[in-house]
Amino acid sequence: MSDIEREVHAVAERARDAAADLAPLSRAVKDEALLAMADALVDDAESIVAANAEDVARAREAGQSEAMVDRLALTTERVGAIADAVREIAELPDPVGEVVRGKVLPNGLELRQIRVPLGVVGIIYEGRPNVTADAAALCLKSGNAALLRGSSSAYSSNTRIVEVLRGALAKTGVPVDAVQLVPGTSRDSAQALMRARGLVDVLIPRGGAALIQAVVRDSTVPVIETGEGNCHVYVDAAADLDKALEIAVNAKTQRYSTCNTAETLLVHKHVADVFLPDVLGRLRELGVTVHGDAKVRSVDPEAVEATEEDWSTEYLSPDLAVKVVDSLDDAVAHIRRYSTAHTEAIVTDSQAAARRFVSRVDSAAVMVNASTRFTDGGEFGFGAEIGISTQKLHARGPMGLPEMTSTKYVVTGDGHLR
Amino acid sequence: MSDIEREVHAVAERARDAAADLAPLSRAVKDEALLAMADALVDDAESIVAANAEDVARAREAGQSEAMVDRLALTTERVGAIADAVREIAELPDPVGEVVRGKVLPNGLELRQIRVPLGVVGIIYEGRPNVTADAAALCLKSGNAALLRGSSSAYSSNTRIVEVLRGALAKTGVPVDAVQLVPGTSRDSAQALMRARGLVDVLIPRGGAALIQAVVRDSTVPVIETGEGNCHVYVDAAADLDKALEIAVNAKTQRYSTCNTAETLLVHKHVADVFLPDVLGRLRELGVTVHGDAKVRSVDPEAVEATEEDWSTEYLSPDLAVKVVDSLDDAVAHIRRYSTAHTEAIVTDSQAAARRFVSRVDSAAVMVNASTRFTDGGEFGFGAEIGISTQKLHARGPMGLPEMTSTKYVVTGDGHLR
Repeated sequence: MSDIEREVHAVAERARDAAADLAPLSRAVKDEALLAMADALVDDAESIVAANAEDVARAREAGQSEAMVDRLALTTERVGAIADAVREIAELPDPVGEVVRGKVLPNGLELRQIRVPLGVVGIIYEGRPNVTADAAALCLKSGNAALLRGSSSAYSSNTRIVEVLRGALAKTGVPVDAVQLVPGTSRDSAQALMRARGLVDVLIPRGGAALIQAVVRDSTVPVIETGEGNCHVYVDAAADLDKALEIAVNAKTQRYSTCNTAETLLVHKHVADVFLPDVLGRLRELGVTVHGDAKVRSVDPEAVEATEEDWSTEYLSPDLAVKVVDSLDDAVAHIRRYSTAHTEAIVTDSQAAARRFVSRVDSAAVMVNASTRFTDGGEFGFGAEIGISTQKLHARGPMGLPEMTSTKYVVTGDGHLR
Repeated sequence: MSDIEREVHAVAERARDAAADLAPLSRAVKDEALLAMADALVDDAESIVAANAEDVARAREAGQSEAMVDRLALTTERVGAIADAVREIAELPDPVGEVVRGKVLPNGLELRQIRVPLGVVGIIYEGRPNVTADAAALCLKSGNAALLRGSSSAYSSNTRIVEVLRGALAKTGVPVDAVQLVPGTSRDSAQALMRARGLVDVLIPRGGAALIQAVVRDSTVPVIETGEGNCHVYVDAAADLDKALEIAVNAKTQRYSTCNTAETLLVHKHVADVFLPDVLGRLRELGVTVHGDAKVRSVDPEAVEATEEDWSTEYLSPDLAVKVVDSLDDAVAHIRRYSTAHTEAIVTDSQAAARRFVSRVDSAAVMVNASTRFTDGGEFGFGAEIGISTQKLHARGPMGLPEMTSTKYVVTGDGHLR
């Protein structure tokens, strides 16, 4: 075992001990700690901004773009917004202790299935330091100990934020080690976290596709895959084409950088002649580069030729792949082949078409006559989200606080024997 | 890619295609297929018994014990029982399509979270060929395509059973490739299944600890760990000692080979002098070898000395580790350290003690004044179980049909935009 591995595992062991004490805490104790964390962020905002200035200076020296620097930079106002987000998490219901199901068995045994924390949750994330406080708060509210592994670019900010949060916890009934930063900024420290099976209960990577795939590949700790979104909008033969136009444009252009943004538009051949000129014209006006098949390029000579790679690309940019399909089933087959199973939308006025699309498309969210952009914990009314799961085990789609829990069966008898 | 890898992946691809067709099938179609499978098992029982005779002959040649041979051996009566189990699964409710939650969002979007099949489920199992039909039926009922990888010792039986099941499916609306045997009996074929990430949605190992640990270690496909059970009974200072005696004896001796059998008995020091002579006497009468600490051996000189290894051993035999603890918290600490987090029991008449034990013990099932032997899908009223999960993600404890599903969000609007 290398030094960094030993160090990371020592931190994880402390997290496991903290998790044992954290699990039985009442909502009142946890909420008090969350509010103390929020107050401390505001009180210590200056020192956080000062630490952040070191990260910002390093980013500028490294020649990062101003957009990247802006994502990284903190002001006292931004720290205040981070504190507000922590306060909002305190207001959400506590998922722990909920009786998921319960009954009395024929022999009189009382059976209850109860929500319990997962235990130790590792979060590996990129970029913005607001995730540090956000992830810590979501973990604490759901009774989990948080092991935070941010990117090296925000290490000074993250270190200071975690110091402030732990300082706040020291004055409450929550163990300080409920929130810990994973030491080190090397690849080795992330690897050590991924290998801490038995100490860490789940790893949640938050960031780009490369990060997520690396964690899925290298981790022996169970992982919840989040976020990668090659989302599709399918305009059916029976679509209301006015709605279809607005939904396609909204799904692509309302925001380019989010995982629920549409990356491919599929158009039924029966409406292609009417629909394509309109939608391609609007997209061009909005500065979107269309990557189209032959039919699309015959309508819009400015469209570039779509390659095989385009169909599987999550652009996160003003680019859209557009294809004409022969049937709903062809659209479904295309989606089943290329989608990351995040969100797909159908625009149709046909009940039969909607029903078939919904039952055949195997994605975390299926939209009928609505923009793909609605797949979001906030939009779904979950109050907060730790990420959007694109896997099928444990949680699928936007993950709120209940998705950060497991369950336990409690069986009460009076000397019952088999 | 090796030949066997190519072969296994081809089978997995057929399973994935079958899963796509299987997901939208109604309960009626699936139940009809299950009943056809059961009928075919009965009709073809002779050919199954004949194939099984080859496995039995090989087992005898290899010098297997008669107990092992008996576990393997099929008769027409045993095949009939397997068919009956398939019929019982047909009678269970279909979990697919259940609306787990649903509401109308403030903007008018209709949000529904719906149970859907996982997709392709791989089962890696040992020994008895009845698992073949049982796993296939549970997968089919929950809308999943089954990839069955049994042990080489039952390969002839498993091959014939799967042929019979597929023959039955060919006459129904269910795709034949919903049930497939993974080709080959080598370690390589199991490994190829474990590496079929993207084709197989989940792997469920059913068998001994060594099998399960190997799958967890080597699989890139998500795994649900099942079955390993180092279960504890803790007799509290406030226990009704008559109940405690019966529960401890039942938990250990009602059946030795099951994962919910108790392997360690912890006794509070305040009741040790009264309780130990009784319980150790009864266990001796029943032929149980006690592995005890110094206090236990002072009461029962026939007890052997418990080593560090004993505390973490799942004996599955007439052996029991017995220890005297200073307090409830010491019992909890012992359990947190050595348990496989399957099932632990407390015997106590104290509400406070029960509450503390239940909230601090982090296992799939916690029994209060009941035998550990009750952790079982049948006992819990689930009708059937694919295994008992000892992990925290996705499913924990006995896994019935709902635990073999994922969910999907279906969001219906009328041209909704963000």
